[in-house]
Amino acid sequence: MRLDLKKNLALIRKEFPILERCVYLISNSLGAVPEKALENLQKFYQMWAEEGVSAWQKEWWDLSRKVGNQVAYFLGAREDEVTMTPNATHCHWVALSTKFLTKDERRKKIIMTDHDFPSMIYAVSKISDFKGWKLEIVRSNGKPAIDVEDILKRIDEKTLFVATSHVYFKSAYIQNIKQISARARDVGALTLIDGYHAPGIIPVDVKQLDVDFYIGGCLKWLCGGPGNAFLYVRPELSENLQPQLTGWLAHREPFLFAQEMEYASRGQKFMSGTPPVPCLYTARAGLDVLKKIGIPGIRDKSLSLTELIIKKAKERRYRLFTPEENNLRGGSVSISLPHAFPVKQALEKRDVKVDFRKGQDKEPDVIRVGPHFYTKNEEIDILFREIDAIYTSGEFKKFPEEIKHVT
Amino acid sequence: MRLDLKKNLALIRKEFPILERCVYLISNSLGAVPEKALENLQKFYQMWAEEGVSAWQKEWWDLSRKVGNQVAYFLGAREDEVTMTPNATHCHWVALSTKFLTKDERRKKIIMTDHDFPSMIYAVSKISDFKGWKLEIVRSNGKPAIDVEDILKRIDEKTLFVATSHVYFKSAYIQNIKQISARARDVGALTLIDGYHAPGIIPVDVKQLDVDFYIGGCLKWLCGGPGNAFLYVRPELSENLQPQLTGWLAHREPFLFAQEMEYASRGQKFMSGTPPVPCLYTARAGLDVLKKIGIPGIRDKSLSLTELIIKKAKERRYRLFTPEENNLRGGSVSISLPHAFPVKQALEKRDVKVDFRKGQDKEPDVIRVGPHFYTKNEEIDILFREIDAIYTSGEFKKFPEEIKHVT
Repeated sequence: MRLDLKKNLALIRKEFPILERCVYLISNSLGAVPEKALENLQKFYQMWAEEGVSAWQKEWWDLSRKVGNQVAYFLGAREDEVTMTPNATHCHWVALSTKFLTKDERRKKIIMTDHDFPSMIYAVSKISDFKGWKLEIVRSNGKPAIDVEDILKRIDEKTLFVATSHVYFKSAYIQNIKQISARARDVGALTLIDGYHAPGIIPVDVKQLDVDFYIGGCLKWLCGGPGNAFLYVRPELSENLQPQLTGWLAHREPFLFAQEMEYASRGQKFMSGTPPVPCLYTARAGLDVLKKIGIPGIRDKSLSLTELIIKKAKERRYRLFTPEENNLRGGSVSISLPHAFPVKQALEKRDVKVDFRKGQDKEPDVIRVGPHFYTKNEEIDILFREIDAIYTSGEFKKFPEEIKHVT
Repeated sequence: MRLDLKKNLALIRKEFPILERCVYLISNSLGAVPEKALENLQKFYQMWAEEGVSAWQKEWWDLSRKVGNQVAYFLGAREDEVTMTPNATHCHWVALSTKFLTKDERRKKIIMTDHDFPSMIYAVSKISDFKGWKLEIVRSNGKPAIDVEDILKRIDEKTLFVATSHVYFKSAYIQNIKQISARARDVGALTLIDGYHAPGIIPVDVKQLDVDFYIGGCLKWLCGGPGNAFLYVRPELSENLQPQLTGWLAHREPFLFAQEMEYASRGQKFMSGTPPVPCLYTARAGLDVLKKIGIPGIRDKSLSLTELIIKKAKERRYRLFTPEENNLRGGSVSISLPHAFPVKQALEKRDVKVDFRKGQDKEPDVIRVGPHFYTKNEEIDILFREIDAIYTSGEFKKFPEEIKHVT
């Protein structure tokens, strides 16, 4: 039984205490915490307090697998195809450190875009240092999107893989991953997709997208908190892979403590050291709620909310740094407006939470507005009413124009 | 003010609920949880529920640094020299992935021992694959210790570094790290020490040991739970290092999301992706209690408990796989006794928790007994009384001799 968002909104909102305290339009950064997460954390503590070390056997060892299977629903993946790891950087290293299948020494080209999250660029470029790969970054020249043709034409027989984002973190532009992976498959290259801004807010089907690696985290749209990233590896590929960033839990007999690695199969193969168990407990509550509502309902609601934001921004002639076409837009809207950083701070003071992103190169500075399934339309009205008031009163002048540390 | 262990034992034990439920002699595997850890977990949830994304600024961002500084006390390290990471495998990769300082291409030799934890051996051997290093493993031939001379004589001008354990996980033998690091320093090699079984149970002073990298975790002797590993890097060395396993939080301006990595200084340089925040909250309680008691008191008590275990094991003519000399012995005692695995299981049924380790190569199978500062002498008596009863009654015959999964 699905939870209808219109009929049950008041009930659903009650499960997320932060919603009573402020206008929370920043789920693109940190999803709201469901009350059930506290129960799960208490359960984690109780297992440890009552079972001691036996907690591992009773629940903890199997938790990475179980949470991975919960996440699989949001990826269109199957059982035991998703591995939980502590953060996306760790995932990237597990994926990129694999001993690759290709024996073709001429394949040294890695393709990325300048819209990919910096950590992913660091991972790929640093590993390229080790492996002698050559990184090519497709540039957006200050635009919110890159024409997919600009990427496709670079993918050739010398390409080892394409590592890019499903949804760009700054502009919420949805890339045409299916076209990218089809072209990559044609020439024998691999795809590694950063989906941090996709599962939980837009429909994702890794099978239909036909990707090789897909990475993300539960922190944002999945309302799961920090410490829960995930890695999907295409099973036909996985069989032949040997991840080099590996630890004892990837061994098929971890408790023999053998000096030689013999990899486990499926998702377990991509585990490494001891998992961050309290994080896994925390993540389950958000995954449960989102599954109960279902991604189709979440996507419908998200589109109507972001449409409303776009409409109101355009009424005020603010420049958008997010596509207006529904099929190209993820869950957030980036708005380039005057004094964006002071405005963000003034909104914070008025209990409206959005985030600010400094433009790189030719990009504008923006505020990112990230509503979620629990957001009310009236909250979008409040956002713009407060922005209007901040300009009218001149309140924005009270805040610094330049950042050092922002979330 | 130090908490005296003799005077306050009953009070201290009350803070660890598992101690009322069973005889807990397995802190070498998972330390008991202090009740305060639950309060801290609740605080984590409350920050998220009440502050939403602002939790990062109010508390979460600074938590890795704060917990690192708490851990520093147990290592003899100074402020901001210890970086928290999700697990030791991640730490090893951060350390071993650094672009090294030596330009000497002949330095390709890495020295380890077969007593080092498998994950560490996997990390070093897999990274050696990338880097073209040659791994030499010093063998123990089934003995609980390796003569330090056997290691020292291998360290020469071709050695890049020595990667080994402070305390061996299976036998609790304390290696003479000072001699190893002195020899390494003499020939221009580096040291990377796995201290998972040292801080929190024996005095550690990384300055006096003069090591380059020191890695461990809060899971066992520090009573901090999973998800909290740590990395100390000698500050004089750190300045010139560039960790290749890196993420956005290692950047000196992480919130600019710059595509080029410019490393932060000190401990922050060795961070990577988003930290597992609930784990960090959990860890603080154990670190607080242990600091209040102080390592000198913990070590004294631990020695008297392990002496008692050794005495009782010898009375029964069980073979020890742990040194009898106090200065060579860490916090646990490994006992090779007949039908070790069935005996371990029968003890579990009798609410006495110890662990079992399968011997590799010529090593015996053992039970490992790991008492901690909260253990009573009477609990050692109970352990041996139960072992006697298990043999006398033949109860051990009810349990399988072979393992698959053990903790």
